[in-house]
Amino acid sequence: MRNQVRIEGVARRVEPVRYTPAGIPVLSFELEHESKQQAGGFERAVRCVISAQMVGTEAPQTAPQLEGNTVCVDGFLAAKSLRNPRLVLHVQHVELIKV
Amino acid sequence: MRNQVRIEGVARRVEPVRYTPAGIPVLSFELEHESKQQAGGFERAVRCVISAQMVGTEAPQTAPQLEGNTVCVDGFLAAKSLRNPRLVLHVQHVELIKV
Repeated sequence: MRNQVRIEGVARRVEPVRYTPAGIPVLSFELEHESKQQAGGFERAVRCVISAQMVGTEAPQTAPQLEGNTVCVDGFLAAKSLRNPRLVLHVQHVELIKV
Repeated sequence: MRNQVRIEGVARRVEPVRYTPAGIPVLSFELEHESKQQAGGFERAVRCVISAQMVGTEAPQTAPQLEGNTVCVDGFLAAKSLRNPRLVLHVQHVELIKV
């Protein structure tokens, strides 16, 4: 099943990279998004803050570039955990839009 | 700012279409998504339930087709309200994948 997100926003609350017991780097931050979007023939002002998480070797070199910068994230949505349905954006690719 | 989601899932808890004071039809349902996705070189099992909302003239004719069916939704993410940060998927297009 497809699960594709492309969203731009300002990266905030970038946490220090942590490592899983298996040594995998994990980077967590928040993405503040604000825009106008069209739906059903109506334009609406859109705001949201999305919890984002990036795992793998690119995480440590991505971390320093994020805080306060506008980025475009490609990823997919998942529940935070089996018990916590809150949506998390799992980052597959990050592009720096504006510093 | 870009804000694009394409996600497949099973439509559940399809509510009766309601109308705003201005007479605009609003359709609310939940999208149950389950898949395997790749991130940072790792494959992970993904599950989530996303609140979805469709407004406008297509809502009434879309409603009867949804319950229990697999659909592909194109839309964007927004906070439920200024005071409620929970993410809602605003539906721009729905495609019936499997009945």
